[in-house]
Amino acid sequence: MVRVGIDVGGTGIQVGIIGEDKSILAEGSIPTRTDIPFEEQVQHIVSCVTETAASAGIPVDQIESVGAGIPGIANADGDVIKCTNMGWYHVPFRRVFQKYLNVPVLIDNDANVAALAESVAGVSAGTSSSVFITIGTGIGSGIIINGRIWNGFHGIGGELGHVTLCLDGEPCTCGNRGCLERYCSATALIRMAREAVAAHPDSQILAEAGGKFEKIEARSLIDAARKGDPAATEVYTRYISYLSQAIASVINLLDPEVIVIGGGVSKAGSFLMDAICREYPKYVIYNDQPMPQIKIAVLGAKAGIIGAAMLS
Amino acid sequence: MVRVGIDVGGTGIQVGIIGEDKSILAEGSIPTRTDIPFEEQVQHIVSCVTETAASAGIPVDQIESVGAGIPGIANADGDVIKCTNMGWYHVPFRRVFQKYLNVPVLIDNDANVAALAESVAGVSAGTSSSVFITIGTGIGSGIIINGRIWNGFHGIGGELGHVTLCLDGEPCTCGNRGCLERYCSATALIRMAREAVAAHPDSQILAEAGGKFEKIEARSLIDAARKGDPAATEVYTRYISYLSQAIASVINLLDPEVIVIGGGVSKAGSFLMDAICREYPKYVIYNDQPMPQIKIAVLGAKAGIIGAAMLS
Repeated sequence: MVRVGIDVGGTGIQVGIIGEDKSILAEGSIPTRTDIPFEEQVQHIVSCVTETAASAGIPVDQIESVGAGIPGIANADGDVIKCTNMGWYHVPFRRVFQKYLNVPVLIDNDANVAALAESVAGVSAGTSSSVFITIGTGIGSGIIINGRIWNGFHGIGGELGHVTLCLDGEPCTCGNRGCLERYCSATALIRMAREAVAAHPDSQILAEAGGKFEKIEARSLIDAARKGDPAATEVYTRYISYLSQAIASVINLLDPEVIVIGGGVSKAGSFLMDAICREYPKYVIYNDQPMPQIKIAVLGAKAGIIGAAMLS
Repeated sequence: MVRVGIDVGGTGIQVGIIGEDKSILAEGSIPTRTDIPFEEQVQHIVSCVTETAASAGIPVDQIESVGAGIPGIANADGDVIKCTNMGWYHVPFRRVFQKYLNVPVLIDNDANVAALAESVAGVSAGTSSSVFITIGTGIGSGIIINGRIWNGFHGIGGELGHVTLCLDGEPCTCGNRGCLERYCSATALIRMAREAVAAHPDSQILAEAGGKFEKIEARSLIDAARKGDPAATEVYTRYISYLSQAIASVINLLDPEVIVIGGGVSKAGSFLMDAICREYPKYVIYNDQPMPQIKIAVLGAKAGIIGAAMLS
């Protein structure tokens, strides 16, 4: 028997056939189309699943379950409540999918799915509790407790990015102020880098962006800080302090066995991890308390299909 | 069979014999003594348990288990890691207790125990997930997931009071700045009330405290706000906004079925609940998302013995 994982994204939909040893037996993909009705979107996805299985010589009756990770929220009935990128609002994903392929269908948020993937087949495999934090345009997160995703009673939890980190702070896209992702995302780092360049036009940050202000990325700031540029170092130190306070808050509230950091900013590797691991213990309650492991995610883009396949 | 719950407090230790229907069959108490060695402290507690059972005609062999709630942290081995009020640091509570009464002994933080009590025999009974927030001198909290306390991998989680709510904010007793309890506890409300009185000496707040600045309590502020005093209303509105952002953060991260509010400030009753329930939906992610129930704790001082007895 195999499990199928579907990673629904804004530009493409990835499908993976996952074996009992959690290896990827076959992969397929289709571009995301939002110009067609919901049922047709689902039919395209089902076709991609059956064709990917066929490409690996796997009969459809060998499919034990299908899981989907979406950039949005779903409920326990398999309905998508909201998935803006796909134009899905209160649509019965499971019911429509099963019209075309009648197997158990599970659906969850993509960050929750990635958290599960890492805890089953990635860097936190073998642990029973972990919090996965993906640092990109926003902050995604997933909570694993007793080996299972905790996404809340209504299926809308796990949104660390929208925990208040700073009362009356930076305005957030969600309508609030001071959300954690306004201080800890790549977007926040870029904002802080641009402010630093405006104040210090001769900083190395701009050179790392090819001299173009609008091309400043998280990487430009991180590379300039790595080279010891003073303005970049000041920004990076402040960013690490924010991120470490966020991590310490997760520890104080949830005390997981492992915290897994993924997303674009995690590509900074040990330059990021060393800085975080020096800083976050300053913000936990007791200086002699046991600390979680802090690790960088290892499954990358494959986390979506692997974790979705492991939904249960 | 009965279960025994012990509520270890800074001034007294309460013992309750709890029946299978979760009713209290007998109660006893001893004053807290920190002038005697640890083992002697435990002997006193064991004597209180056996005498309380005897007073209700319950033989010791009818005791199924003993649970203790402490104002501190314990690990899964039954060792107390830290309990400042008792002077306990890395002491083997379970092992020493069992020398004198050989039954299963469980131990957990008092806020976690109160959370369990409410979810088993109180206002959140019958629900599978809840977050209990007790608003007093500090902020205590307990997380119930799938009917059980989630106190973390190392047993030190559930400390909502020390989640960062305001970067670079008010200094906290834990050594950090901007901890949630600096904005949402009774202590925070008193601080804000005193600032308001300093700026508006003619405010009703002072009158509610009998004209004595040093007697200003959370209740003085709440009673003045209830009567419409402008300075008190301004403080109360700000306090409700802070508390509502804390509650919305809990919802965004954990999405529990119920949020239970306890502690001294919860005595404000519907004046508090109505204000919170108007305010917190402003800070959740989606304005049309399903919301948890928000309820006031009902077990009061009995939560400690009932919840401790229910530990498993």
